[in-house]
Amino acid sequence: MTHHVLLTGFEPFDQDPLNPSWEVARALDRWQPAVMGRAGDAFEVRAAQLPCVFGDAVVRLQAAIAQWQPVLVICLGLAGGRSEITPERVAINVDDARIPDNAGRQPVDTAVQLHGPTAYFSTLPIKAMVRNLRTEGIPASVSNTAGTFVCNHVFYALMHHLAQATTKDGRPQAREARGGFIHVPALPELAARHPGMPSMALATQVRGLQVAIETALSVADDVREVGGALH
Amino acid sequence: MTHHVLLTGFEPFDQDPLNPSWEVARALDRWQPAVMGRAGDAFEVRAAQLPCVFGDAVVRLQAAIAQWQPVLVICLGLAGGRSEITPERVAINVDDARIPDNAGRQPVDTAVQLHGPTAYFSTLPIKAMVRNLRTEGIPASVSNTAGTFVCNHVFYALMHHLAQATTKDGRPQAREARGGFIHVPALPELAARHPGMPSMALATQVRGLQVAIETALSVADDVREVGGALH
Amino acid sequence: MTHHVLLTGFEPFDQDPLNPSWEVARALDRWQPAVMGRAGDAFEVRAAQLPCVFGDAVVRLQAAIAQWQPVLVICLGLAGGRSEITPERVAINVDDARIPDNAGRQPVDTAVQLHGPTAYFSTLPIKAMVRNLRTEGIPASVSNTAGTFVCNHVFYALMHHLAQATTKDGRPQAREARGGFIHVPALPELAARHPGMPSMALATQVRGLQVAIETALSVADDVREVGGALH
Amino acid sequence: MTHHVLLTGFEPFDQDPLNPSWEVARALDRWQPAVMGRAGDAFEVRAAQLPCVFGDAVVRLQAAIAQWQPVLVICLGLAGGRSEITPERVAINVDDARIPDNAGRQPVDTAVQLHGPTAYFSTLPIKAMVRNLRTEGIPASVSNTAGTFVCNHVFYALMHHLAQATTKDGRPQAREARGGFIHVPALPELAARHPGMPSMALATQVRGLQVAIETALSVADDVREVGGALH
Repeated sequence: MTHHVLLTGFEPFDQDPLNPSWEVARALDRWQPAVMGRAGDAFEVRAAQLPCVFGDAVVRLQAAIAQWQPVLVICLGLAGGRSEITPERVAINVDDARIPDNAGRQPVDTAVQLHGPTAYFSTLPIKAMVRNLRTEGIPASVSNTAGTFVCNHVFYALMHHLAQATTKDGRPQAREARGGFIHVPALPELAARHPGMPSMALATQVRGLQVAIETALSVADDVREVGGALH
Repeated sequence: MTHHVLLTGFEPFDQDPLNPSWEVARALDRWQPAVMGRAGDAFEVRAAQLPCVFGDAVVRLQAAIAQWQPVLVICLGLAGGRSEITPERVAINVDDARIPDNAGRQPVDTAVQLHGPTAYFSTLPIKAMVRNLRTEGIPASVSNTAGTFVCNHVFYALMHHLAQATTKDGRPQAREARGGFIHVPALPELAARHPGMPSMALATQVRGLQVAIETALSVADDVREVGGALH
Repeated sequence: MTHHVLLTGFEPFDQDPLNPSWEVARALDRWQPAVMGRAGDAFEVRAAQLPCVFGDAVVRLQAAIAQWQPVLVICLGLAGGRSEITPERVAINVDDARIPDNAGRQPVDTAVQLHGPTAYFSTLPIKAMVRNLRTEGIPASVSNTAGTFVCNHVFYALMHHLAQATTKDGRPQAREARGGFIHVPALPELAARHPGMPSMALATQVRGLQVAIETALSVADDVREVGGALH
Repeated sequence: MTHHVLLTGFEPFDQDPLNPSWEVARALDRWQPAVMGRAGDAFEVRAAQLPCVFGDAVVRLQAAIAQWQPVLVICLGLAGGRSEITPERVAINVDDARIPDNAGRQPVDTAVQLHGPTAYFSTLPIKAMVRNLRTEGIPASVSNTAGTFVCNHVFYALMHHLAQATTKDGRPQAREARGGFIHVPALPELAARHPGMPSMALATQVRGLQVAIETALSVADDVREVGGALH
């Protein structure tokens, strides 16, 4: 049996022609990780593109989850200015847009989910991911904030969905699917138009996500490893 | 009647002789904000020093709250590397120490409060604070992560305490006391020993906290103002 | 006998109401350093404001030098984005303006001085200045580039002038007068309008320049102290 | 006839197993740029590795120049912390080592060349290089300081050598050979061991140097293009 891994990326944002989050997801569509499940099951990645729009992005994410019934969901987003692949630790229940999204929406200090909890932790093994990425020579660090724009919005909505999800016959499936969010750096092509902006080649990003996905599929409990931030 | 504002700072950390968070708190001990409560009540600041130690810092904080029954609690901490006064938006339920605290403790990925919620939002008017600080010519920004060290630990414990607190006769007082955490930059004296580190003069920091406290005492609902982070 | 120290600062640039380089110079006008010359001579600072305009700034600088016949000339400029007081090591013979100056001039890759040498080193004891500033608790570092805008333009023109200067009776005075350039950080008031920009209080800057001037007047040969840059 | 382009890189520095400057140079050894000289002449790159040692590096550089009689010399060096390919504008006549070189040498504030001029400008078309690199989607910027360590040391010695060089029969050849220095970012493998450090993939760096070399071989006079630094 083959289980699905859902990998989402965003459409290009603002004036940029490419969004690395989608380029990475697209490159890994149909990729089969070299990891096997407990019963010898195989895994296969399915990519889905999300609009960079509050609300609409979540509708599209939920449709993709419904379609693929994934055991693992990783949403990707661009973090212009970061130089590393950064698995996010926590999603917070706030939309606070510094600039308008692709549909011109700019929520300020509103909840992602009206009666939702203040935050959700990622259920990905973020420390093990960072350790394995670094071992592979790929710059990575845990991030403690996904911001308050569409990325955090999707991250929170994903975790809320996974925490609430039930199958059609009413049994909870929350424990089945793990999920989280990973920010990726700008591509060199984008950084070339923004002097000083760090970047990471697409090939490195794609290899990084392969490592991250295989780690998530093979590590049951995250490692306890130093990786916090003083502030 | 005089209401108390509790302002805490940390003891010096590691090798540094001074901690600006405590220097600011100490400088404002007994200071009376130029703001009056609804019934013409006055306010007065009381400073308390916290040890830079997981657990012990919270014990000391709770003792100070019990002693002064404050209507407002602001905990301060040093954020070496930041150049602005940064009111924190959210405390998360994790201790993840990159380095040992002053007692040699270094918890990694443990909960601050075993069965506590994932996070608490500050109940300070952080956007109004930042707006008023900038108007006064004092660099300030909202921060979306207080890290995972003793600062976040104290911030989370404070918000958990305020959310749970009841008076001795059993009536809830949660709605009465507001609280949160503000990170301050290094003092010039510290930055002078760490080339490249930004700093802020003590006088500017003290003036900044006066503005922040008066804002918290006079603004009932925070302003809705653009101030989020893309990531 | 009283010798003059010429301290210059720039007029406000662009939209900013204040320029710290001038605020510092103005604050020290007529200040008498606690240092005596070899014959028991005293020193006194004279401040001059330079326009932030290629060419015009040099005319004004030369006029001030002619007026005060200083034994020491320190030109100050704002380096928005730097957090420390940074004595500059070298002035280069190029004008390359990323943006127009206050008169709308924007030279690109032209010489400051057509047949001048490629560069001049500062004749200030920059290492001793940095050491003394840090000892006083004031953040400071040697800088190896003054950029290619009006600051470097004035710095180069100053050093060229001092290297060429002769008194009216034809005797060289080059060895008499030392000179150089020091960049100072933004004031908090400016940084408050540019989120993330580091700053330094005016009082700290003024105290810093007092230390720098007294060091220049009392140190004959600069100290040999580690302070270079890897790149 | 085939003209040589000399491309140098440094041996690994300190504890790092790889130095991107040498990996790039090595990858381009024997590469033939798709550019032809005036008489239909071809070009071919020769790579040489320099020790990361004051003095010795220059000896090796001069030997390689003597061996290959290049028409173009580009020396490469690693700039850990930079995210872009940065052609350097100016070499200064100072050695000021913040840390010891690979032979334990640590000169402080001494001249590269005792009676040499204060500085040399690169004779590479640095603005055209940056423009072409960006057009190719490769992050690049002009740098106004090569630091004061072995990189600047080699850069200065190269320019001094080219300015002085005469052929065996005594005719000057200075006008024949152009030269300069380009800093490259860390490789991802190195950045993976230094959290927060930006990097650039080897393939991107190699492609970048191809663009830079072809630009240098085909652009006679550098473009006048905005690209200066405010400070």
